[in-house]
Amino acid sequence: MKIISLLSDFGLKDPYVAEMKAVILSICPEARIVDISHEIEKFNIRMGAFVLASAASYFPEGTVHLAVVDPGVGMKRRPILVVTKRAFYVGPDNGLLILSAQRQGLNHVYHVTNKQFMLPQVSRTFHGRDVFAPTAAHLAKGHVPSEFGHEINDYVVPEFAKPTLSKNVLAGEVLHIDGFGNVITNVSLRELEKISVKEGGMLHVKLKEDIIKLKFCVAYGEVKANQPLAIIGSHGFLEISVNQGSAARKFKVGIGEAVQLSLS
Amino acid sequence: MKIISLLSDFGLKDPYVAEMKAVILSICPEARIVDISHEIEKFNIRMGAFVLASAASYFPEGTVHLAVVDPGVGMKRRPILVVTKRAFYVGPDNGLLILSAQRQGLNHVYHVTNKQFMLPQVSRTFHGRDVFAPTAAHLAKGHVPSEFGHEINDYVVPEFAKPTLSKNVLAGEVLHIDGFGNVITNVSLRELEKISVKEGGMLHVKLKEDIIKLKFCVAYGEVKANQPLAIIGSHGFLEISVNQGSAARKFKVGIGEAVQLSLS
Amino acid sequence: MKIISLLSDFGLKDPYVAEMKAVILSICPEARIVDISHEIEKFNIRMGAFVLASAASYFPEGTVHLAVVDPGVGMKRRPILVVTKRAFYVGPDNGLLILSAQRQGLNHVYHVTNKQFMLPQVSRTFHGRDVFAPTAAHLAKGHVPSEFGHEINDYVVPEFAKPTLSKNVLAGEVLHIDGFGNVITNVSLRELEKISVKEGGMLHVKLKEDIIKLKFCVAYGEVKANQPLAIIGSHGFLEISVNQGSAARKFKVGIGEAVQLSLS
Repeated sequence: MKIISLLSDFGLKDPYVAEMKAVILSICPEARIVDISHEIEKFNIRMGAFVLASAASYFPEGTVHLAVVDPGVGMKRRPILVVTKRAFYVGPDNGLLILSAQRQGLNHVYHVTNKQFMLPQVSRTFHGRDVFAPTAAHLAKGHVPSEFGHEINDYVVPEFAKPTLSKNVLAGEVLHIDGFGNVITNVSLRELEKISVKEGGMLHVKLKEDIIKLKFCVAYGEVKANQPLAIIGSHGFLEISVNQGSAARKFKVGIGEAVQLSLS
Repeated sequence: MKIISLLSDFGLKDPYVAEMKAVILSICPEARIVDISHEIEKFNIRMGAFVLASAASYFPEGTVHLAVVDPGVGMKRRPILVVTKRAFYVGPDNGLLILSAQRQGLNHVYHVTNKQFMLPQVSRTFHGRDVFAPTAAHLAKGHVPSEFGHEINDYVVPEFAKPTLSKNVLAGEVLHIDGFGNVITNVSLRELEKISVKEGGMLHVKLKEDIIKLKFCVAYGEVKANQPLAIIGSHGFLEISVNQGSAARKFKVGIGEAVQLSLS
Repeated sequence: MKIISLLSDFGLKDPYVAEMKAVILSICPEARIVDISHEIEKFNIRMGAFVLASAASYFPEGTVHLAVVDPGVGMKRRPILVVTKRAFYVGPDNGLLILSAQRQGLNHVYHVTNKQFMLPQVSRTFHGRDVFAPTAAHLAKGHVPSEFGHEINDYVVPEFAKPTLSKNVLAGEVLHIDGFGNVITNVSLRELEKISVKEGGMLHVKLKEDIIKLKFCVAYGEVKANQPLAIIGSHGFLEISVNQGSAARKFKVGIGEAVQLSLS
């Protein structure tokens, strides 16, 4: 069995996602297709990279991840195929794939140029269907990565800020706001330990101009409904949440917002 | 073939649903996964219970229904596995599964405690991925329910109001508003027969402070476009609808609203 | 392998799509189900026909396309089964299927009347589940089209306006607005050639009362971010787009809007 995962900013209203699936099944009828998300914010490569990296590690070895957030379609950005220790990635060379691939141990990146693995007619606006989907399907069928094009080393690496520590203050930023309104930061548990935060203790969080004191919880229900808290979320990062409510709405924060954390 | 159905309030933007699917396919590659809905209102257990109960009876025997609307995640609420005459259910012990299970003939409820069937690392916020998905996958693979934990009898039973009849007035409530704006009540055809409503006749409906007279139709098209009507919907309950329009918007009603029905 | 594609205006919140899938898998467990879209505007047959016709040609031969946008459910409109040179279509006789079927070469249309291929109880409001889904599943299982009912010739053909040419002005209309805000017209490249538009040249576009001059591009990135352009989109039609933005919002146009194109 070969699994092909799909991620895009195409939404679910239009025929675009189905056209990619139809192309895949025409080439590799035995593929199992699993949607990661098609609701990535339009053109938001960073959000796509974060969601892809979060989900990919749960897939079986050998999965082909096909991801398309592609503001440069039709221009000079290259189609690439990435091989890691666990999986394959197909998509545009704009950073979308690399965060996830690096976490898995990146082995090789190929510039996809072999037209034999593309649709006969490549449109100017939809390489997801005409280039990436057939490439992913032929890869799932067993073709070897080096058949698709030559190896490259100058692929685009996305820049994700790392948290910094200065005078017992951790400075990070908001990576993602999920559908519940959880504010997911780029601060991991290991980094939090540097400022000696303990579960059950309090954390001072500077968001915009406000400093809020939040309990560092192990479950949402430790505070009352509609009360805010801090918690290590399901991807290992600190999240600012509201029990049964939306922290993003309560604190009016968005992706990229600066966050400062300290004990007092 | 083993079918695993999925229902949650996770939405489709984030990686959460895909992570559950990836965990399932890692354990049970032959599983067929069918989404019921991931657009349940956040934390709305009643809505989840209604949607699950509506869909479940159409699935083949032996289906494993995995459902997660879980405001109590990480607290004391137990993970459970429910066995009915037709199917299996996996999810939180908060009432979500029981409405559907009771309709199918509930046989046994187990408290899932066997860590062998969970992910090695159980996060504090996402038991859908770390507890329920692997449990469902191992169940689909053929493990026997009693392997997952001991049987319990004190599981949470959701309270759904039954319509009451007094002086030829049926008093019920709104169970669900669907995407078309159909207002789905908890009044079945059998109950309507107690007040002798006949198809083609008129029905007096009290909604909020208004009393509206609606034709009891067998098809939306019996009234003109944008006109309201009453009809037995696809789940066997009385629905207040607008032909090619939204009754919820027209009458400004939501879930839980009281409805009174009478002949005159 | 048999693929069944699904298209509807049901949305993804409610149990309706899952009930269709459950019915299909109960009858034909080996079917591969692929969603085209369930976010067709409620009751918008034209939009459904456009999306179905766009996607269908990418599916393998022998696919069964099940499509339901059905304002006339329960009234006199007939359930039909359409056989083309490449595929099968099942749905209501309201024009939804025919645009796509005609593009593939329509061979036969049958009025589905054989109750043996429907659910035992046919509801008044949901033929997608009770009539179309079991029909599609039995067809995928190998039943011959003529078993489902008798052939008809008076099926509903949707009217899609063709662009007209007069004094070097092409007059067309907006077929679809996609999730990116691309304004997709009914003008194909072949028609544009009649007014001698060349890639890289300028195109005068009359939209509402405004005349805008747009570069006729081969890639979005030929103009700056947030600047408008004209381009042949992935379905072979002229689209008015904004690079990394929404043309529909910029120009405040909707489906059906008139568009006039000329060289100067």
